[in-house]
Amino acid sequence: MPPLRYLPAPMSDALSPLDVVFRPTSVAVIGASRDRGSIGRELLQNLLAFDFQGPVYPINRNASSIHGIRCHRSVLDVPDPVDLAVLVVPRDAVLEAVGECARKGVKALVVITAGFKEVGGEGLALEAELARLVRESGMRMVGPNCMGIVNTDPEVRLDASFAATLPLPGNVAFASQSGALGEAILATARQLGLGLSQFVSLGNKTDISGNDLLEHWAEDPRTQVVLLYLESFGNPRNFARNARRITRAGKPVLAVKAGRTGPGARAASSHTGSLAGLDAAASSLLGQCGVIRADKVEELFSMAMAFATQPIPRGSRIAILTNAGGPGIMATDALVTYGLDVAELLPATREAMAAVLPPEASTANPVDMIASADAPKYRACTEALLADPGVDALIVVFVSPVVIDSRTVAAAVLDGVVAGRARGGEGKPILSCFMGRAHGAEAEQRLREGGIPVYAFPEAAAQALAAMARFRRWIDRPEGVAPELDVDREAAARILSGAAGGGQEWLDSGEAQALLEAYGIPVVPSRLVSSPEEAVAFAEEHGYPVVLKVEAEGLLHKSDVGGVQVDLRNPREIKGAFWDIAHGFGARGVPYRHRVQRMVRGGREVIMGIASDPTFGHLLAFGLGGVYVELMKDVVFRLLPITDQDAREMVREIRGFPLLSGLRGEPPVDVSLLEDVLLRLSRLVEDFPQIAEMDLNPFMAHPEAGVSAAVDARVRVAPAPPGPPAT
Amino acid sequence: MPPLRYLPAPMSDALSPLDVVFRPTSVAVIGASRDRGSIGRELLQNLLAFDFQGPVYPINRNASSIHGIRCHRSVLDVPDPVDLAVLVVPRDAVLEAVGECARKGVKALVVITAGFKEVGGEGLALEAELARLVRESGMRMVGPNCMGIVNTDPEVRLDASFAATLPLPGNVAFASQSGALGEAILATARQLGLGLSQFVSLGNKTDISGNDLLEHWAEDPRTQVVLLYLESFGNPRNFARNARRITRAGKPVLAVKAGRTGPGARAASSHTGSLAGLDAAASSLLGQCGVIRADKVEELFSMAMAFATQPIPRGSRIAILTNAGGPGIMATDALVTYGLDVAELLPATREAMAAVLPPEASTANPVDMIASADAPKYRACTEALLADPGVDALIVVFVSPVVIDSRTVAAAVLDGVVAGRARGGEGKPILSCFMGRAHGAEAEQRLREGGIPVYAFPEAAAQALAAMARFRRWIDRPEGVAPELDVDREAAARILSGAAGGGQEWLDSGEAQALLEAYGIPVVPSRLVSSPEEAVAFAEEHGYPVVLKVEAEGLLHKSDVGGVQVDLRNPREIKGAFWDIAHGFGARGVPYRHRVQRMVRGGREVIMGIASDPTFGHLLAFGLGGVYVELMKDVVFRLLPITDQDAREMVREIRGFPLLSGLRGEPPVDVSLLEDVLLRLSRLVEDFPQIAEMDLNPFMAHPEAGVSAAVDARVRVAPAPPGPPAT
Repeated sequence: MPPLRYLPAPMSDALSPLDVVFRPTSVAVIGASRDRGSIGRELLQNLLAFDFQGPVYPINRNASSIHGIRCHRSVLDVPDPVDLAVLVVPRDAVLEAVGECARKGVKALVVITAGFKEVGGEGLALEAELARLVRESGMRMVGPNCMGIVNTDPEVRLDASFAATLPLPGNVAFASQSGALGEAILATARQLGLGLSQFVSLGNKTDISGNDLLEHWAEDPRTQVVLLYLESFGNPRNFARNARRITRAGKPVLAVKAGRTGPGARAASSHTGSLAGLDAAASSLLGQCGVIRADKVEELFSMAMAFATQPIPRGSRIAILTNAGGPGIMATDALVTYGLDVAELLPATREAMAAVLPPEASTANPVDMIASADAPKYRACTEALLADPGVDALIVVFVSPVVIDSRTVAAAVLDGVVAGRARGGEGKPILSCFMGRAHGAEAEQRLREGGIPVYAFPEAAAQALAAMARFRRWIDRPEGVAPELDVDREAAARILSGAAGGGQEWLDSGEAQALLEAYGIPVVPSRLVSSPEEAVAFAEEHGYPVVLKVEAEGLLHKSDVGGVQVDLRNPREIKGAFWDIAHGFGARGVPYRHRVQRMVRGGREVIMGIASDPTFGHLLAFGLGGVYVELMKDVVFRLLPITDQDAREMVREIRGFPLLSGLRGEPPVDVSLLEDVLLRLSRLVEDFPQIAEMDLNPFMAHPEAGVSAAVDARVRVAPAPPGPPAT
Repeated sequence: MPPLRYLPAPMSDALSPLDVVFRPTSVAVIGASRDRGSIGRELLQNLLAFDFQGPVYPINRNASSIHGIRCHRSVLDVPDPVDLAVLVVPRDAVLEAVGECARKGVKALVVITAGFKEVGGEGLALEAELARLVRESGMRMVGPNCMGIVNTDPEVRLDASFAATLPLPGNVAFASQSGALGEAILATARQLGLGLSQFVSLGNKTDISGNDLLEHWAEDPRTQVVLLYLESFGNPRNFARNARRITRAGKPVLAVKAGRTGPGARAASSHTGSLAGLDAAASSLLGQCGVIRADKVEELFSMAMAFATQPIPRGSRIAILTNAGGPGIMATDALVTYGLDVAELLPATREAMAAVLPPEASTANPVDMIASADAPKYRACTEALLADPGVDALIVVFVSPVVIDSRTVAAAVLDGVVAGRARGGEGKPILSCFMGRAHGAEAEQRLREGGIPVYAFPEAAAQALAAMARFRRWIDRPEGVAPELDVDREAAARILSGAAGGGQEWLDSGEAQALLEAYGIPVVPSRLVSSPEEAVAFAEEHGYPVVLKVEAEGLLHKSDVGGVQVDLRNPREIKGAFWDIAHGFGARGVPYRHRVQRMVRGGREVIMGIASDPTFGHLLAFGLGGVYVELMKDVVFRLLPITDQDAREMVREIRGFPLLSGLRGEPPVDVSLLEDVLLRLSRLVEDFPQIAEMDLNPFMAHPEAGVSAAVDARVRVAPAPPGPPAT
């Protein structure tokens, strides 16, 4: 049968800078040991057991041979060149050993030893010194505080880890930021039959980071899928650039990002800031570079099994083939839950299946062949479903009845796949679910060897297909551009430097309004006034009705404290509003001013805003406004800068979008204006990163062109501009 | 160590009516076979292999012995009494065999044979005849179309199934509506070390249903946990009564309900009807009787492992003990995701741990002992955490480093559990997550034998604890009552019979208003008018401003078509509104009438309503009103009737509840009035089940007492009252 592997466009085979780590021709184990249960022994044993294709040199001050191999007292004593040194010496011996490696001309290090940055105190200084030594010598380093690396390439066969599980070779690369999890990862992969190309336990990422690995795996021809277990991102911009490049080229990257819900809340003094939870920035980053996020490590694996063996489907129309009703219902439930479609089958497909099935069978999708389905029926229906042009992917379910041999069914499914692929089924993923009894393990093995992933229950298969369909949308998505915008950068700079000069953190409302106008963001006209007469004059000029609002230092929710008087239709009502404010809000005894503003009628309240994250930089928010935003959390985020495609997607991603696009025959609001404002906000913050927080809340989105505008704007400037770390 | 089993109040040990099925003293296998791969052979083999404690009689027309056991041609030929007969004969031989069983005096049947109701056609008639035979004979029957039953009681040892897996004895009962899934269930349970008390494949439920089993297991002293895989409910009222009884007594019931998202949408002509998705009724039913719903079979098992071995925690404050940072973060993420709390530890607890841990360890929760944690440290910290009064439950994570033997850690954890339980830790569940390497399996085995469930990753443990915390809330929840309400039942009956007499399906708005008023549900005053002058007269009587609305046959969304004119402040505005309607809505050419209503200012729009489901009967809905209800789906449902406790919970369960309870210093609306209206709606539909649909939309919830009222009410009466099936 033809290979079922997914092969993207061939990658360049130029030498990667990390090949010094992954493709050494000789390895020294500094701290190799003969003590049972020691890391130095386990690591040496793994190197030998995995059959490393070059010489291995144990280094130990006190032994002359280990496992029958001649042992040296120092790497400097090795008579031949050493490419890679793995260090398992005590912490206080690391620096000396690294110095010797540098003198020896070692090209790369894997430092297993712990006790550096992660323990604080003295460890911090030691790690800084280690980093300096490595940088100056030109060596590359994985770790410290890691469990090692693996490269299953048959030309190399490097297992420089102390894991108990030897890896299976395959096309999946895995980087784990948690060494502890590495063990579980290797064991689970082996148990699922998931083959790895390379594995790296990142440790403290003192030199080699996840970003370096993304660059490396983008070019590695043996790596078709990249899995990441992350706890932090290093430089998010580099991550985004590398991840976007690799995913857009068609190599899927799947990640578990831990620390989603940790405590350590961000201090936030704006709506947008408080809405941007701890996890919003990480989720935005992953989504914006096409990385598929899994909530759990188990999900990461079940998705990886599909990505590693199956083509990316063209769409989301799924067929289900089963010999039992219950699992068919479970699979259908799961499809719908994960946002996939139950494929509508062609009459010809149903007839082809009806020809081989008993009358009690159901040829509508999910296709229930009933318990009497034997191997020939599985073969014929698999073929027919794959050949149906309305089917993008297939889930085959088999619950083994007593009288049917699951091994023959497995073989028949594989035959059906070949036949169906030849009849237009190319490019369609096939996932199987074997809820078997006798010979179940053998049948599973046969399917796996035939390149078909096997799941224990249908839900995991549906979830994997949903991830693949999402990846298809990502590959097919237009790139988008950051369009040219007409902005007055000088005016904005003047406003911001004026505020900074006065030591202000929050711009006053006049400054905020002017800043937005400089960047072409519409604002509802308003004016600071000191008497009812000035307010009436404003109303006569701009038209009734108007709104009267108080402005006071640090006042966020004006309307909660009687600080907003709306729908003032004539001079008398304006005076009445002054009276109400004086006797309501005024009684608080805090200094305040009056602002009068034209009242906007109709339209929908939305919120747009900026938050900043110490790690990720600026986040742009868009959501439905009003009190609902906080309760319903109907807000989406993007890291800046954004493209026009991002702006289009942001507006459409909120659940409340039908309110903007015209619910029940209402006129739609000016959606393109909203997209334009998002792009202008992005540009504003790109130009002036000292803007730390901003709320346009509410921004009235109006059906009529030229009416939508911000009603209230708050802008905070940071004393020092926030930004991502340099590394 | 003391037993870790959860032992609820002892149940009565009176003979259950289903003991004739589960506790036979002799079994006949009618259709027993010697053919390899036949169900008749597998079934007989299981009975023998599981060591049934009485005689087994193979019945086969054509064999004189099977497996060395004397074979009879008919059950009538068996010289001794037969309690239970298992039928595996071809379909067309079933009725004769059942007749012979009746004559023989057999007490119970398990009919494995398929081809009845589930295949339609002739099968329907055969099943009806089978049902009649069984009923008339007084025998009880499981099936037909099932895979058998199991009772692991050592006094019985009955495996009357054709599953490939022999079950482990234990305290978990399982009923599966899918026979196909039964195989997977038994295999998975065995693999996880989950012991079963009884297992039933329900098949077509012609006699014995899930409801019968709930009654039976409520009284079965060997059953501590009940698991269900359901595709339908039979009689939902019986299910609710039985499930509520068993769960309130402290026996947890966990269920997977399949068919959540199937097609087959309900025809709905009201808001409430369209909001009540296919799954809302099933979810409401399960929630209202304390059944914990799992989305997947895998989750069912991982929850069951905790319920089967651990006490129900007193609260939701969880401590995490780990020797590695990554899994600690994963566990914390999962806790927060599932709505549990990260326990705050007492200083004394932290000091006790600090005394045995190195300075690099973290004694704040999650407690990270770091990789050097050995058995004594696990023991001491387990004890300290269990003894902390601020900890309700504990998750112990162990990632096995090279130098630590996981078996000694497992033993130490068990010792720590004993010590901690003795120091105030009674009643606290302990779950473990072993991400082990060498000896991992042995360590897991040791923990399981010690009564501690073991998970592969921390998320599943957190999910299980969340289910236990939910069950705790259910047990502690006040029952609630259906309070006496002052209603005018006769007036309501007159209105409904008047409408029915006229052949109306939808009540007109006057009738709807009168119906609500008869049941003490406030309605904003309104009147049908035929001229602006009549409208003005209404306004002078009830006060300005008023609203003018059209009424037309089948018109649902009035305001979408210009049929609602609001905020009319004087006679001239009323006339203008008549003009607008005449030239807007009136241009459609459909007959309509005018209704004038007092306009309600302030308050929040909510929706309350009734939908009816052919299976479940009436559903009561409560949610936030306005356009948001449809987009945000912020609606909760209950099956009727409800208690005051249900009403309290309904109002508080919506995400938007803060809008009602007083967001940002606003006055709260009259919440108790909303609860009262929900109770009155429940009573109304109990009294008049012919009410098929009802919308109070919007119902204005107002802060001031006596002002909240329904603005619009629509009531549909069904030609024939809907209701649950009789069986």
